[in-house]
Amino acid sequence: MIMTKEEFANHSDIQSPRHVFRAEDWEEKEIHALLDEAENIAQIPRQTPLFQRLYAVNLFYEPSTRTKLSFEAAERNLGLEILPFATDSSSVQKGESLYDTVKTLESIGADVVVIRHSQEKFFDDLRTGINIPIINGGDGCGNHPTQSLLDLMTIRQEFGSFQNINVVIAGDISHSRVARSNISLLRKLGANVTVSGPEKWIPDEYRKMYQPMDEAIPMADVMMMLRIQHERHHASNQNVYSFHSSYGLTTDRESRMKKSSIIMHPGPVNRGVEIADELVECKRSRIFKQMQNGVFARMSLLKHVLRQS
Amino acid sequence: MIMTKEEFANHSDIQSPRHVFRAEDWEEKEIHALLDEAENIAQIPRQTPLFQRLYAVNLFYEPSTRTKLSFEAAERNLGLEILPFATDSSSVQKGESLYDTVKTLESIGADVVVIRHSQEKFFDDLRTGINIPIINGGDGCGNHPTQSLLDLMTIRQEFGSFQNINVVIAGDISHSRVARSNISLLRKLGANVTVSGPEKWIPDEYRKMYQPMDEAIPMADVMMMLRIQHERHHASNQNVYSFHSSYGLTTDRESRMKKSSIIMHPGPVNRGVEIADELVECKRSRIFKQMQNGVFARMSLLKHVLRQS
Amino acid sequence: MIMTKEEFANHSDIQSPRHVFRAEDWEEKEIHALLDEAENIAQIPRQTPLFQRLYAVNLFYEPSTRTKLSFEAAERNLGLEILPFATDSSSVQKGESLYDTVKTLESIGADVVVIRHSQEKFFDDLRTGINIPIINGGDGCGNHPTQSLLDLMTIRQEFGSFQNINVVIAGDISHSRVARSNISLLRKLGANVTVSGPEKWIPDEYRKMYQPMDEAIPMADVMMMLRIQHERHHASNQNVYSFHSSYGLTTDRESRMKKSSIIMHPGPVNRGVEIADELVECKRSRIFKQMQNGVFARMSLLKHVLRQS
Repeated sequence: MIMTKEEFANHSDIQSPRHVFRAEDWEEKEIHALLDEAENIAQIPRQTPLFQRLYAVNLFYEPSTRTKLSFEAAERNLGLEILPFATDSSSVQKGESLYDTVKTLESIGADVVVIRHSQEKFFDDLRTGINIPIINGGDGCGNHPTQSLLDLMTIRQEFGSFQNINVVIAGDISHSRVARSNISLLRKLGANVTVSGPEKWIPDEYRKMYQPMDEAIPMADVMMMLRIQHERHHASNQNVYSFHSSYGLTTDRESRMKKSSIIMHPGPVNRGVEIADELVECKRSRIFKQMQNGVFARMSLLKHVLRQS
Repeated sequence: MIMTKEEFANHSDIQSPRHVFRAEDWEEKEIHALLDEAENIAQIPRQTPLFQRLYAVNLFYEPSTRTKLSFEAAERNLGLEILPFATDSSSVQKGESLYDTVKTLESIGADVVVIRHSQEKFFDDLRTGINIPIINGGDGCGNHPTQSLLDLMTIRQEFGSFQNINVVIAGDISHSRVARSNISLLRKLGANVTVSGPEKWIPDEYRKMYQPMDEAIPMADVMMMLRIQHERHHASNQNVYSFHSSYGLTTDRESRMKKSSIIMHPGPVNRGVEIADELVECKRSRIFKQMQNGVFARMSLLKHVLRQS
Repeated sequence: MIMTKEEFANHSDIQSPRHVFRAEDWEEKEIHALLDEAENIAQIPRQTPLFQRLYAVNLFYEPSTRTKLSFEAAERNLGLEILPFATDSSSVQKGESLYDTVKTLESIGADVVVIRHSQEKFFDDLRTGINIPIINGGDGCGNHPTQSLLDLMTIRQEFGSFQNINVVIAGDISHSRVARSNISLLRKLGANVTVSGPEKWIPDEYRKMYQPMDEAIPMADVMMMLRIQHERHHASNQNVYSFHSSYGLTTDRESRMKKSSIIMHPGPVNRGVEIADELVECKRSRIFKQMQNGVFARMSLLKHVLRQS
């Protein structure tokens, strides 16, 4: 069934749009429902465009290849049209508030808005007054709910559930918008979460979950490597080399992983830093599978917020 | 009826495309015809795509969120496809003339081009030689015909006609590409136009139409506030505060407006400067309505230039 | 016949995608087949969209109006959808390799990728591992196969074949990504190629094919002028004037051209430098025809790589 703009307007509840701001707000049941839908979608992602003549706008105030393209692919797969918005040549330069920008998009006819912004909790200003659903595409060092959703999808796909799955999250936990959400969600869903990497990057609240890499490796079902943000750390070549041998997923460490275990990384990968070059496309790696799943997870979420069901 | 590229080519007059350069060139009858069509469109804006496999290109050499998006929404609503053009990564950098750029677009298959450019009267170089219609999306401090059209639509919607409607245009008249066009058009259409705001921003030719804010407010049917262009004026915080109390639409002034009167503003709004924060979405405000009307007005105009009727 | 994503996947050979990296790799037979298809397409370029729900991504790491727009028009004409990719706000800034970027695009669902990059032979890193076709949209001073294809199309259109056609290529041969490919292809196809322009811009290997402008002009069937790259040469006004009279296509030189001969230029044109202002749209000029042909040539090539036939 394709819904036209008019049918969509009649059967949606305009008074309370379904914003998606924080991954932690999802209940266990909701997550499984979103992932079930994503798996259905994965079977025939481009078969039947669901929506017709509905508009999505992607407001990306921070650079991001994969997240923006993934949303665009998800939107097009569903039949949504994209109104292009260049944040660098926009009224943002003229000092317009984010609320007024989104209100303008609504007036012009946008049906859903995806926002990525460097300011943590940018969405606090958008909680009331906007009558179309907003999806958080990443806020500063805060939240990134669709990345969490695709990570969960990739794990559930592999192991069927989250119960007693050992997930090791390794790297710069303190600056990762995904790590905190994933820790909270994975524990809610029954997984055992360990954090690893340089101790200075482990926030106090997670200190009890810490294990050094070489202890964490043999018990992990999932090695979830985080990206080193060169933008933040300005690492020298010397540091990069020593980081890889001390805290990276080397080929040696990979050889000590459990038989059925998998490697994840949100991308973009620094080859030879957090993970050895040869491992990026190895058998255990789900790195490009995650990107594929990202499109399906986002389709599931877009369907959810647009259907208001 | 959907027109294909071939049907369209047969029934259009390729020799003399209908460029839209200056709002002042419209006759009273033409304006009413364009607005009538815009009102028809407003009933079912996305119901029936009129054109199929026709291409629009939007050349925006100046930043503008709302105008560009509004054109894009108008184009998509009509079924036009958009060929994206990034002015910052284009041959413009290589010193190509605007004429050659537009001629290239025509050769590549564009069916209509919308141009916004910082140079006043950029369109003088495009009057001959181009065989596809060009719409001025704003030239320097000069003209902005589609903004004028949506302003007129919003006023006519409210009052049914322009006869003896008191329109007060307040703010930086001298730098406003819209103010001059609107003054000329509104007078042609039978409205009474008053200008207000700081006297230094009132060009000599409009001196006789000037009234201070507190005298203009009680007689206005329409308070059309202009945007303070921080880009041009580099106002200090001190100045902003004193501007608002001296020349802005304060809540106190709003309380002295006529019962049926409305507030307009082209956006983006400087909340608390030209208009009080609380008034942006108040009952009298047509600010977001204007943005909605902008899409319909642009659809009407695009239909007009593409149909050559 | 419209092919859906599923039908396309079934009938294509995913193991060995048809990359297009260098014009010189084409056999004579292949070139004529591509040009035959382009001529068919030129009859009804937008009549029947061939592909449905297939995605193209255009990765342009260098500015280019006409090439990017031409690919976009070609893609849309064929029914391909475009996933927009802004290289300036992308993971490239985060140091991601080109291989990983393209692999990401593949994972997200791209069916074909067009790449323009300042690094010569950027495609050497992409020869293995990518399962979707890649088209070179121009690499540094190296290759630009679709520009060559449209140049060949324009010449064959005019003269029916390449046998004994006298083609003069004039200008900065040493920095032109197209000149070298065209020289090699035209000779393979049976044309006589002469190079002209300032002698310092003629690479040693072409020294024997050199003739001064005034000797080359009267025997040319095709005067193929190259663009002076101000970006590279920082010419003064004095130099520009003297360049035009010494090496440019002046109105005087044009008057000594053969009756049926044509003028070509890849654009963007520096009017009054490599070619006189008045000649850009003269009867002999095929400059805007080349741009038109560019869309058809690219459609032919896209059809070829997507069909794997």
